[in-house]
Amino acid sequence: MNYCSQCSHPVDFRVPDDDSLPRHVCDNCGTVHYINPKIIVGCLAEWEGQILICKRAIEPRYGLWTLPAGFMEREETAAAGAARETVEEARAEVTDLSLYAVLDVPQISQLYLIYRGTLVGGRHAPGPESLETELVTPDRIPWDELAFPTMQVTLQHYVETGGADLTQTGPLTKTIRRPTRKPC
Amino acid sequence: MNYCSQCSHPVDFRVPDDDSLPRHVCDNCGTVHYINPKIIVGCLAEWEGQILICKRAIEPRYGLWTLPAGFMEREETAAAGAARETVEEARAEVTDLSLYAVLDVPQISQLYLIYRGTLVGGRHAPGPESLETELVTPDRIPWDELAFPTMQVTLQHYVETGGADLTQTGPLTKTIRRPTRKPC
Repeated sequence: MNYCSQCSHPVDFRVPDDDSLPRHVCDNCGTVHYINPKIIVGCLAEWEGQILICKRAIEPRYGLWTLPAGFMEREETAAAGAARETVEEARAEVTDLSLYAVLDVPQISQLYLIYRGTLVGGRHAPGPESLETELVTPDRIPWDELAFPTMQVTLQHYVETGGADLTQTGPLTKTIRRPTRKPC
Repeated sequence: MNYCSQCSHPVDFRVPDDDSLPRHVCDNCGTVHYINPKIIVGCLAEWEGQILICKRAIEPRYGLWTLPAGFMEREETAAAGAARETVEEARAEVTDLSLYAVLDVPQISQLYLIYRGTLVGGRHAPGPESLETELVTPDRIPWDELAFPTMQVTLQHYVETGGADLTQTGPLTKTIRRPTRKPC
């Protein structure tokens, strides 16, 4: 950030009065510009013992596999955002969503909320951001071709618990600091 | 947003190519400025059957009571943010945090994550953003003087379940669309 988005004056980067962290401050109009963490919402969509995954048609991680997920939009709920991303990336409807994983990725200021749900009718097809979409059984998850550590952790937890219903144990909450290995 | 924060050129508000929602777009440098939902993190801190609450010394809702909470900062985890807010607003340390409530407030593009924890030593004191801090038993919660609907819903759920350990049932997930009434 170089300029004030309100008045176009150059901004200063300093700790404002009564604050403890540096912010972009405009000395012309007085606006303090906060930069907030971002929320990623996604779905672990199940159908007859299989999970829906998407091969990315966009950067970053073009050609690698992910659960359908993306940035939460304004004025939507997290679950609605997760369902929207599943429509956009996999042309798939999901139902009966429940919160499955809350994953912190502090080094890039992201918070993931992954919802578990049922794929309606087992139907899916690539949206514009996907090269392919596929239903895989847990033993066929492409561990070496997953796009993001958060997806690896979510799927690893799913496999390790045998897909147990986590509403009985609370969501997976974890801080992701580096890529994790596939389960042994 | 009136001007591009990268190059100071006036921005246009329109749906960019390959997008579905209007964004602030700079036709000079090409930057698309996304405005994201914000994350509020807070604590339901317990001590010997009591809950820590704070009377706000700042707007909005000056003089009303809340759980310690505030905007999540960059490069922190949600739980660390909840603990930080508890230090800032109530000079109180919390331990053994677990995710208690995930509350959507889509009409103002906010997502709340409330963590439950234990107040260390029962110690608390007002920080600069609080007029008072207090430990209250559930029957002494000031229902008519709570600052935010999210706090009302969280505390109402806590009281209705008798403070049951929600790790057995998953977090409270709810969309807050308007102020709710106190429990009958």
